Amino acid sequence: MSTQLELPAETVAAESVTDLVEGIARAARSAQRVLARMSSPEKEQALQLAADSLRAAEGDILAANATDMANGAANGLSSAMLDRLKLTPERLAAMADAVAQVAVLTDPVGHVIDESSRPNGMVLQRVRIPVGVIGIIYESRPNVTADAAALCVRSGNATLLRGGSEAVHSNRAIHAALVAGLTQGGVPADAVQLMPTQDRAAVGAMLAAAGLIDMIVPRGGKSLVARVQADARVPVLAHLDGINHTFVHAAADPAMAKAIALNAKMRRTGICGAMETLLIDATYPDPHGLVEPLLDAGCELRGDARACAIDPRILPASDEDWDTEYLEAILSVAVVDGLDAALTHVSTHASGHTDAIVTQDQSVADRFLAEADSAIVMHNASSQFADGGEFGLGAEIGIATGRLHARGPVALEGLTTYKWLVRGTGQVRP
Amino acid sequence: MSTQLELPAETVAAESVTDLVEGIARAARSAQRVLARMSSPEKEQALQLAADSLRAAEGDILAANATDMANGAANGLSSAMLDRLKLTPERLAAMADAVAQVAVLTDPVGHVIDESSRPNGMVLQRVRIPVGVIGIIYESRPNVTADAAALCVRSGNATLLRGGSEAVHSNRAIHAALVAGLTQGGVPADAVQLMPTQDRAAVGAMLAAAGLIDMIVPRGGKSLVARVQADARVPVLAHLDGINHTFVHAAADPAMAKAIALNAKMRRTGICGAMETLLIDATYPDPHGLVEPLLDAGCELRGDARACAIDPRILPASDEDWDTEYLEAILSVAVVDGLDAALTHVSTHASGHTDAIVTQDQSVADRFLAEADSAIVMHNASSQFADGGEFGLGAEIGIATGRLHARGPVALEGLTTYKWLVRGTGQVRP
Repeated sequence: MSTQLELPAETVAAESVTDLVEGIARAARSAQRVLARMSSPEKEQALQLAADSLRAAEGDILAANATDMANGAANGLSSAMLDRLKLTPERLAAMADAVAQVAVLTDPVGHVIDESSRPNGMVLQRVRIPVGVIGIIYESRPNVTADAAALCVRSGNATLLRGGSEAVHSNRAIHAALVAGLTQGGVPADAVQLMPTQDRAAVGAMLAAAGLIDMIVPRGGKSLVARVQADARVPVLAHLDGINHTFVHAAADPAMAKAIALNAKMRRTGICGAMETLLIDATYPDPHGLVEPLLDAGCELRGDARACAIDPRILPASDEDWDTEYLEAILSVAVVDGLDAALTHVSTHASGHTDAIVTQDQSVADRFLAEADSAIVMHNASSQFADGGEFGLGAEIGIATGRLHARGPVALEGLTTYKWLVRGTGQVRP
Repeated sequence: MSTQLELPAETVAAESVTDLVEGIARAARSAQRVLARMSSPEKEQALQLAADSLRAAEGDILAANATDMANGAANGLSSAMLDRLKLTPERLAAMADAVAQVAVLTDPVGHVIDESSRPNGMVLQRVRIPVGVIGIIYESRPNVTADAAALCVRSGNATLLRGGSEAVHSNRAIHAALVAGLTQGGVPADAVQLMPTQDRAAVGAMLAAAGLIDMIVPRGGKSLVARVQADARVPVLAHLDGINHTFVHAAADPAMAKAIALNAKMRRTGICGAMETLLIDATYPDPHGLVEPLLDAGCELRGDARACAIDPRILPASDEDWDTEYLEAILSVAVVDGLDAALTHVSTHASGHTDAIVTQDQSVADRFLAEADSAIVMHNASSQFADGGEFGLGAEIGIATGRLHARGPVALEGLTTYKWLVRGTGQVRP
């Protein structure tokens, strides 16, 4: 399967796009079998060559990116989108460095999860293996091309990359550089493929390719993730929302609570780990001290009746506010009657991402940690730490809020599964 | 949500069945939160009470089963189906004993998978938690009602049980007895619910209930599993086929190979771990000695051209045979040229269940174990061991051939997921 093939969107019928995507996925499956047999040092070496190749292709990549930027400006992309699209020598160097960093992450493949022996002498092991073929559907940021490919290669997975049309030239140049390095290191070219068409039907065909693609990771805005989650017949690893709560309990240390609340909301309001709802215990001694720094920092607060009574600058919240991920300097605030009411609010409104409690009462903290049900539950820390890098995973392919397979920040281990190895000496079942 | 509610199928519109199922699932979610807080000894005690209650309800359950058997006979159920449906005092005692055995299995909930600390002092743990609400869709065998409910309760999950109409009276009686015991032990009644309607739309509503039901486990014939896999918007843990291969390598011990092949096929032909294709290395010294005991035992062999040359009783195989799970005394046989050809055949035709190699050559065995990609890969053992009990798991909810979350025999651990606990002392992200 040539990775250069380009079919003009207008001339491709849905059926042939499906055939195209399925053919690509089958080629990826074959390539993955070769990749799965490569040793950890071989994969590391190939990724270092890919990083070098990215650095060497700086001119080509920046030129391709300039084309995308010009098209984007002509097509009226927002300045935020243009900023995400833009590559600079510094950003490109960081992209190559990230690939080199993934190269040296501990390879999860082959790790023995557990082992047992049976009375009849059979020895059983569960051993980590790659998931197989992973589809990445993403927008704008061309660095996802390199990041996702590197994480998949490191964990022995083939990748099918489907970036947005606004970044098509950048993605092709990055992909070409990556593959040049990877193949030099022995990785089959079909193990990292960029969809050769921007036809939107290709996304549908990827989402439908159960059995050919093993997992889809969407990276992008909410509408992209929502479409993928709604339409996919392939398992999806993703989060749609980060409606994250911080509960300031009656026994919270006021200085700590103030610092955590301010940081959780205002450090960066646009990341998925940002706090979106502040829950204040009705008996917390200094609610005004908690909201004042947020208001002073320019955050709009929308409260329930009791929260509005804390400060006249707090606006009344609507029912929708409790289910809204603002991703900007807006925060909903509710006053709740103790831990149980806080847990009820969280279980009703949280999106399964990250919820936190601030308290000096260990038994209250323990109950919150046990009973709040999100992928990440924190005690006395800012929800802005919800990130694979901050968790020491070295990188992340994304954050997942589903309940199965992998939750929270997903890095290499989440790109693996396991198989059972049974070693016998001729045992038959009585 | 009363568990006694019965809506006659004819009068239930699709929308109200959806409402009904969603209401039941929401009640299950609330009950699951209570169950998730129960300690391991509390859950054990509740399950022992459920086992006692099943024993005490023998009269009711057998009477209900007699009704189902009479209806089944009147409706022309096959004798095989009637046998699966039938309960006897012995089968009921075994069902209660199985519940008592699950009660004492190690509780996976709360197990710390791993732990790390960050340079800023935050301590991270990944801790096992229940998946949440699990739907079981099954046929005929009423013991699934007790087995599945027990495994789910032990692992802190709520269960929604949807058995077949042929077993409706048996399932209701078993469910009533179970819930009587479980509630006495503090488990909320809504944590184990039997669908109050046999309307087939209820199955569709369960499969569509993404976000309300966390996982579906189908237990039954291929058409049931295929429908569930095709229609579900909820993750499904299942296997559709067990097209299991045994490759007898050139360096196999002939006596061992003969014994394993005979056992893998003929011990019980109807179980999912039975061998369906025998691959014989072209240079294996005694192919006739391998097929003769199978033919003598009454197994029909269907071979490729080279296999047919081994014994005149071997019939020619069609292309379909290589993708067929017979579940009876029929076996496809192919002669292959060494390990690579065997792996190619397996990767083309295996269903991801259990594949085995017989060889005395350790390096060949190691390659087969590494490169065969099914949930279970065996060396020098019969594929009939593919079973949670035989693997020492104590029980199994089923065998899964998908690639994510859990593979192979799935017991309590496969009914759990994890969350991240982050313990800080006031850390904010710089």
